[in-house]
Amino acid sequence: MVTLQENPLRAGLKQAKTPEPLILTIFGASGDLTQRKLVPALYQLKKEGRLPGEMTIVGVARREWSHDYFREQMRQGIEEFSDGIANEELWNDFAEGLYYCPGNMDEPESYDKLKGFLEELDGKRGTRGNRVFYLAVSPQFFPPAIKQLGAAGMLKDPLKHRLVIEKPFGKDLSSAQVLNSIVQKVCREEQIYRIDHYLGKETVQNLMVFRFANAIFEPLWNRNYVDNIQITVAETVGVEERAGYYESAGALRDMVQNHLLQLFCLTAMEAPNGINADSIRGEKVKVLQSTRLADIKNLEKSAIRGQYTAGWMKGKPVPGYREESGVNSESTTPTFVALKLMIDNWRWQGVPFYLRTGKRLPKKVSEIAIQFKNVPLTIFPSAAQQTNPNILALRIQPNEGISLRFEAKVPGAELRTRTVDMDFSYGSSFGVATADAYHRLLLDCMLGDQTLFTRADEVEEAWRIVTPALTAWDAPSAPDSVPFYEAGTWQPPEAEFLLNRDGRRWRRL
Amino acid sequence: MVTLQENPLRAGLKQAKTPEPLILTIFGASGDLTQRKLVPALYQLKKEGRLPGEMTIVGVARREWSHDYFREQMRQGIEEFSDGIANEELWNDFAEGLYYCPGNMDEPESYDKLKGFLEELDGKRGTRGNRVFYLAVSPQFFPPAIKQLGAAGMLKDPLKHRLVIEKPFGKDLSSAQVLNSIVQKVCREEQIYRIDHYLGKETVQNLMVFRFANAIFEPLWNRNYVDNIQITVAETVGVEERAGYYESAGALRDMVQNHLLQLFCLTAMEAPNGINADSIRGEKVKVLQSTRLADIKNLEKSAIRGQYTAGWMKGKPVPGYREESGVNSESTTPTFVALKLMIDNWRWQGVPFYLRTGKRLPKKVSEIAIQFKNVPLTIFPSAAQQTNPNILALRIQPNEGISLRFEAKVPGAELRTRTVDMDFSYGSSFGVATADAYHRLLLDCMLGDQTLFTRADEVEEAWRIVTPALTAWDAPSAPDSVPFYEAGTWQPPEAEFLLNRDGRRWRRL
Repeated sequence: MVTLQENPLRAGLKQAKTPEPLILTIFGASGDLTQRKLVPALYQLKKEGRLPGEMTIVGVARREWSHDYFREQMRQGIEEFSDGIANEELWNDFAEGLYYCPGNMDEPESYDKLKGFLEELDGKRGTRGNRVFYLAVSPQFFPPAIKQLGAAGMLKDPLKHRLVIEKPFGKDLSSAQVLNSIVQKVCREEQIYRIDHYLGKETVQNLMVFRFANAIFEPLWNRNYVDNIQITVAETVGVEERAGYYESAGALRDMVQNHLLQLFCLTAMEAPNGINADSIRGEKVKVLQSTRLADIKNLEKSAIRGQYTAGWMKGKPVPGYREESGVNSESTTPTFVALKLMIDNWRWQGVPFYLRTGKRLPKKVSEIAIQFKNVPLTIFPSAAQQTNPNILALRIQPNEGISLRFEAKVPGAELRTRTVDMDFSYGSSFGVATADAYHRLLLDCMLGDQTLFTRADEVEEAWRIVTPALTAWDAPSAPDSVPFYEAGTWQPPEAEFLLNRDGRRWRRL
Repeated sequence: MVTLQENPLRAGLKQAKTPEPLILTIFGASGDLTQRKLVPALYQLKKEGRLPGEMTIVGVARREWSHDYFREQMRQGIEEFSDGIANEELWNDFAEGLYYCPGNMDEPESYDKLKGFLEELDGKRGTRGNRVFYLAVSPQFFPPAIKQLGAAGMLKDPLKHRLVIEKPFGKDLSSAQVLNSIVQKVCREEQIYRIDHYLGKETVQNLMVFRFANAIFEPLWNRNYVDNIQITVAETVGVEERAGYYESAGALRDMVQNHLLQLFCLTAMEAPNGINADSIRGEKVKVLQSTRLADIKNLEKSAIRGQYTAGWMKGKPVPGYREESGVNSESTTPTFVALKLMIDNWRWQGVPFYLRTGKRLPKKVSEIAIQFKNVPLTIFPSAAQQTNPNILALRIQPNEGISLRFEAKVPGAELRTRTVDMDFSYGSSFGVATADAYHRLLLDCMLGDQTLFTRADEVEEAWRIVTPALTAWDAPSAPDSVPFYEAGTWQPPEAEFLLNRDGRRWRRL
């Protein structure tokens, strides 16, 4: 397996090489994530010729499946949730490397059995003892699985053994610290790949390219020119089948602590020395360390929650959150969160970062909007009676791209201005569908590149930032203490006030 | 007539009002400019309701035309060179204000006759003594016409009398100074409207809006971030019917001293205090004053001329300049000019401005390209093995608009960058044809707004800048001393060297 030590040219994300032969063991192999995302992404990599011929995948779960039954399940997943099989020969080659090993996450014997099976496969497949263990299981199984993998000696070689941990990584600061200490007892940080699939998205990575491969944005990217930054991740769906998990998580844990704070980091961090895990994660931690809720003593000035009530989406009535199946009829779980964050550093002092996310909002849209200050002097009359400040919007979805809002002259004999958009769309420029996030993350992990995975201190800092809001909202409170918004509207009025109080407003999307 | 003194609200270009009643007298009324541009532009203004009901136009030329014959000629011009008549009632109303007054530019009697005629029209049309005299004649007639208008007392009222002078304004610094002194003897600077029709173009005006109605470009618009600026005005046509004039003018007089230096001024000038004639022209003069050819002692390092030889345009053979009818077979007149200018001020010290213009180039295109410095540190591998610097291109024609060239991530598992364009097109955004430059300039002149007209000191500074090249190229020289370029190619090699010597190259258009 190639490591940074062995080949400095492999540092960073530069290489299009294939990973060394290895066995990828997926815990939770009978679950949705494996069938819908992980194996289809692996098959896509296979199609692209990015997997070594020896590539071996072992599914682990409690059910007593056969290898062939597992292969059949995975084939169904590929056919249903991706581009499909395309080529029977290729599928046969891929399927030959698919194995199933039933096991119970709690029982030491299962790990011994697995260990033996993997060693047997090493001989058969030529995978040379290289292992990636992927925990695609419910978070309560993280601690036992990690402990048992450690106890069975399956994580002891820092060059050959890696561990991938799905989200959520903890449910608050202290549980994340506990989980980190459990992992760090059995392996080193450089073996650990904490997944935040947002980091695998094309546009999220492009944010770094945009900032650091272009000379003209960085000079503007600071408190001298930026008025505020708004990060929105809006969903149209409700809680769906996830009420069991969601009721105890809520939007702050489900979206903000991980995805939105990752977008925040990439937007706010200093330029890294290079595109490698150490530089980038170092910069992300640095910016998180200087970040805080705007006003911790008066939480309503920096953290707003909301919960959707019954409303209309696309002309159809939808139930309120409390009417969803599995949800407590007096639940105060937030399905919407808006935060106002401040960063205490030279670059951003005084510039608010407004983050919001919610379910049952009018539109599925994710974007980062850099709102610049207005011109120091208005010398042109505007057609709209005002000159609008420039906005640089990085659209993550839908229609991934970048647009720059600026003032232009309205044609005609008067010198009046109007706000227009200069636009760039990834799809129309590159003419290819952007790949699924897991495609990228699985490959990086197999190549030994941690750049797009979160580090222990990063996760903990992110939890620290949201702790005051978590604490307040986790405390028992009256059913009517949570602000409501109607399904199909943008946010509760309290979230509007959060910006209006500062003389600003949310961008209309 | 409204003046700045009377109504401070009329200052600048803000107003969509109609001019006060006036008589516009066009000298050279039987010429192409009048028929193709001026009267069609006036009729367009009429259509838009921007002319006062009393609007009166008097054509003056040597030919003995009747009023009706003149009207017929103008109608033909409108039909052939613009959108047409549209509405007979409107045309009749417009034509009623069209008069013809035959006259000889050299004879005092003609001016006396004209004066009487205009006074008669004042009574008939209610034009209250307001006059605009438009010199659309060959430049040798400028001095006699101006002197005679002055002698006849037709320019004596600074609030009621204006004078529009077509290009070229002089043929070098001293002739421009002489012409300025002739004009200044008979009227004040605020009565004089020197035409450079480039200033009437939408995109040229939009350059000011772009720079000064947006907060994010100005911080980048200086030596810290800009590597070089390239201004190109490329024509596909040859000398056509203009050999008589062109042989003694050449590209430097015909295009550079006026149009290209105007584009240069608007690109390089400091932010004006307001959008009014004084502020803007003051800033333009200021930047011209600090501008010089890069190396006056070694002209080949700052001024390159070229002349087209026979070649191919769009698959058809075209003759060389010396084969064109009316051109001396040993002519050294430049049909192409490239300049390297430097500005000695805080903003631009060390940043070269490369200007080029030529006939028989491969493409009709005008643009200003701001080429930014490259990133200080390249951390991303590029798909093209190099990161390209950002370029902001302001397209003047065709397809007026703005594009920003930047680096984006190539979709896929590697973090590679590729150069892409973010684009804004006026036509597709505003959905209207941009108006002819004369439409705007005639209206401004009638409204008393000098912002888009060149001031005496501005013209003289522009001549000063090009003087070393003029002097060298006007001197008799061997027929083979002028660099050649084949019709249908971009430039002579010497013009490439001008940039290559600096480690740069012309932008491919």
